[in-house]
Amino acid sequence: MAVQTVASTTDSAAANSVDLGPAAALSCRECGHRVPLGPVFACEECFGPLEIAYDFSAYDTEELRGRIEAGPANIWRYAPLLPVPADVATKPNLNPGWTKLVQADNLARELGVTGGLYIKDDSGNPTHSFKDRVVAQALEAARAFGFTTLSCSSTGNLAGAVGAAAARAGLRSCVFIPHDLEQGKVVMAAVYGGELVGIEGNYDDVNRFCSELIGDPAGEGWGFVNVNLRPYYAEGSKTLAYEICEQLGWRLPDQIVVPIASGSQLTKIDKGLQELIGLGLVEDRPYKIFGAQAEGCSPVSTAYKAGHDVVRPQKPDTIAKSLAIGNPADGPYVLDIARRTGGAVEDVTDEQIVEAIRTLARTEGIFAETAGGVTVGVTKKLLGSGVLDPSLTTVVLNTGDGLKTLDAVAGTGLTATIRPSLESFREAGLV
Amino acid sequence: MAVQTVASTTDSAAANSVDLGPAAALSCRECGHRVPLGPVFACEECFGPLEIAYDFSAYDTEELRGRIEAGPANIWRYAPLLPVPADVATKPNLNPGWTKLVQADNLARELGVTGGLYIKDDSGNPTHSFKDRVVAQALEAARAFGFTTLSCSSTGNLAGAVGAAAARAGLRSCVFIPHDLEQGKVVMAAVYGGELVGIEGNYDDVNRFCSELIGDPAGEGWGFVNVNLRPYYAEGSKTLAYEICEQLGWRLPDQIVVPIASGSQLTKIDKGLQELIGLGLVEDRPYKIFGAQAEGCSPVSTAYKAGHDVVRPQKPDTIAKSLAIGNPADGPYVLDIARRTGGAVEDVTDEQIVEAIRTLARTEGIFAETAGGVTVGVTKKLLGSGVLDPSLTTVVLNTGDGLKTLDAVAGTGLTATIRPSLESFREAGLV
Repeated sequence: MAVQTVASTTDSAAANSVDLGPAAALSCRECGHRVPLGPVFACEECFGPLEIAYDFSAYDTEELRGRIEAGPANIWRYAPLLPVPADVATKPNLNPGWTKLVQADNLARELGVTGGLYIKDDSGNPTHSFKDRVVAQALEAARAFGFTTLSCSSTGNLAGAVGAAAARAGLRSCVFIPHDLEQGKVVMAAVYGGELVGIEGNYDDVNRFCSELIGDPAGEGWGFVNVNLRPYYAEGSKTLAYEICEQLGWRLPDQIVVPIASGSQLTKIDKGLQELIGLGLVEDRPYKIFGAQAEGCSPVSTAYKAGHDVVRPQKPDTIAKSLAIGNPADGPYVLDIARRTGGAVEDVTDEQIVEAIRTLARTEGIFAETAGGVTVGVTKKLLGSGVLDPSLTTVVLNTGDGLKTLDAVAGTGLTATIRPSLESFREAGLV
Repeated sequence: MAVQTVASTTDSAAANSVDLGPAAALSCRECGHRVPLGPVFACEECFGPLEIAYDFSAYDTEELRGRIEAGPANIWRYAPLLPVPADVATKPNLNPGWTKLVQADNLARELGVTGGLYIKDDSGNPTHSFKDRVVAQALEAARAFGFTTLSCSSTGNLAGAVGAAAARAGLRSCVFIPHDLEQGKVVMAAVYGGELVGIEGNYDDVNRFCSELIGDPAGEGWGFVNVNLRPYYAEGSKTLAYEICEQLGWRLPDQIVVPIASGSQLTKIDKGLQELIGLGLVEDRPYKIFGAQAEGCSPVSTAYKAGHDVVRPQKPDTIAKSLAIGNPADGPYVLDIARRTGGAVEDVTDEQIVEAIRTLARTEGIFAETAGGVTVGVTKKLLGSGVLDPSLTTVVLNTGDGLKTLDAVAGTGLTATIRPSLESFREAGLV
């Protein structure tokens, strides 16, 4: 793996020339080693993953709350808690976030939830998935580091999010995808006019090539949102935690059901909740985090049920393509969080995913991506097994839009076909 | 046409038992005849279209402005100006609106606009088109009149909007479409679980059948959002005008480019702007409204250019299906507004529509429906011909999402295909 060498320092914030707001340094999640902010993602000491360390010490709780509430109706209301400059909202970007937290009373009735059930519906983002949140952070890091090309490997949602964000920011984009991706997905990514390069190989080959490119002079000036900008990128998922709590009236949910792909989103939601507690913005009380996978790609769920601490890779085979990461980098952290908070990790079959998509659409008018079918399906399953408590406030994430995975419900069709006459209408029993 | 008979009255508000907020009566747009609020759409005196008459007399400008600004981040912040009960925001509905007004500096540079160019991006609505705004009003009227089934005729966006809104509200829905609609559109409408009925015939046959059904006992308790609830439904488009002005800092835009299907949206945007002026919420100064059509369905544009007051029906043949109404009911009103405000009506070819979709995506990261290609294309054309003034603040509407009309840009694809190697990458000239 190509890791750019950086000078180690104990006073990294002072050594940084980049302005990324409260972000003070990069810190290794394994050994705690700190390095200055830069386009690096692995610890030089132990090769553990780097994440952002912040300096929030100057914040006054009520002043901060007021500043957030007076902020824009997008993720930048939380700029004081993100690795972005203070003037981020004035720069051209897609301004994602502040998506609806839908009180899902119909679904609650159907599932028997009495303590309040909410869908955090991220299909309302600009390119209709939560990826806009993370790409927006990576974009600021790319600007701070002087990168001129925004790049990524992707099989779907991320490609569009990167293409759109780069277009709006006036950066070049170059997105790498497997060459045989479905035409619809290619169109969704290509329409923004950036470079879209098909790689002759599978998604693993695409990733391997991207890592090579980062270490090569040809990749100079390139910010790969999910590789060399990953520590910044990943922080975007914290905004889901912030929004949920603020939308609940600055209150922690009791239970939250999160999809697992790499596991990064779940770990950052936990980080976000911990930050809100630490800052005094919400009351410190227990919350449980539940992870949701598709049975056809359930390495974390399998490890959880077996009581393991390590995650054994799987070869994905599920309709939930946006969650189909067989070797999830943050798997062990997810296991730790689920166990520590009293949550769990569960999986559902493709049939259950489709049924859950239909249930959510029928009860709440929300058409979810397959990943949303996974979380709703797992919620139902965990309620059935008594692991989720129906008397507690529960938030379920929908991270994408059903329009992007139409194939999953392709069997859905007309309930009747009639001639244009009242007689035919009556015959069909539609009265 | 089946018109329910209602008692005529000069003091209609007092006679109404329904609570639809400031809506006082229905008033004929042709002869001014007033009738009480009810599920009727044509004047009993002259068969002219009925629209909502309001009583805004009790409002204090600054108190109203404060109430709006403190309201929710959706159309219900404007509840005091809509035909809905005051507690509308507490009822289950999709809460559409408050979509982004995107300052489109990149597009402005490309088109040579110096006075400020904005895209009002309604793809951010719950089912990703402006239809959620109008259906939300119809839903409140349906509840007020005790209807139990929400219905419509549709060939696309409206079907999904009605299905989703009814699902969330706990009403039955029954949507009528031509039986041979593309499978993708059928899925988008059917997923919400309501009745979706294919009619053996074209869209005209579907409409004729719906009118028959309204007059028949079989249609009792049915609210057809775009037929017997049309006066309420149509008011939803006013919220586009309200939001644009509030998002500009309570200021009228100088120029606004609106797509024309039936023409209702454009006339209601004008009505909304006039109301804001009348209420003192914006300064009274001139604004120009421009109508945009596809050349393949340009009855209003053709009449405008010929200097006619009447609109001659056309047989639609364009990729802009959501605008393909060959006999637009509000055509004459659109002509009047365009001429009165100093605007114009123009049309663009399918090729120009596709080019405009690509231009908007490439410059601003917004993937528009074909209707958005029409407005952006017409904006470019009118700037080229000097009809639009580049030094004035201009707002262009995008009323739908590109994911719904992927076919329009189906030719978009990979910029290169390479082997997973740096050598192949260099050969492709991507460095």
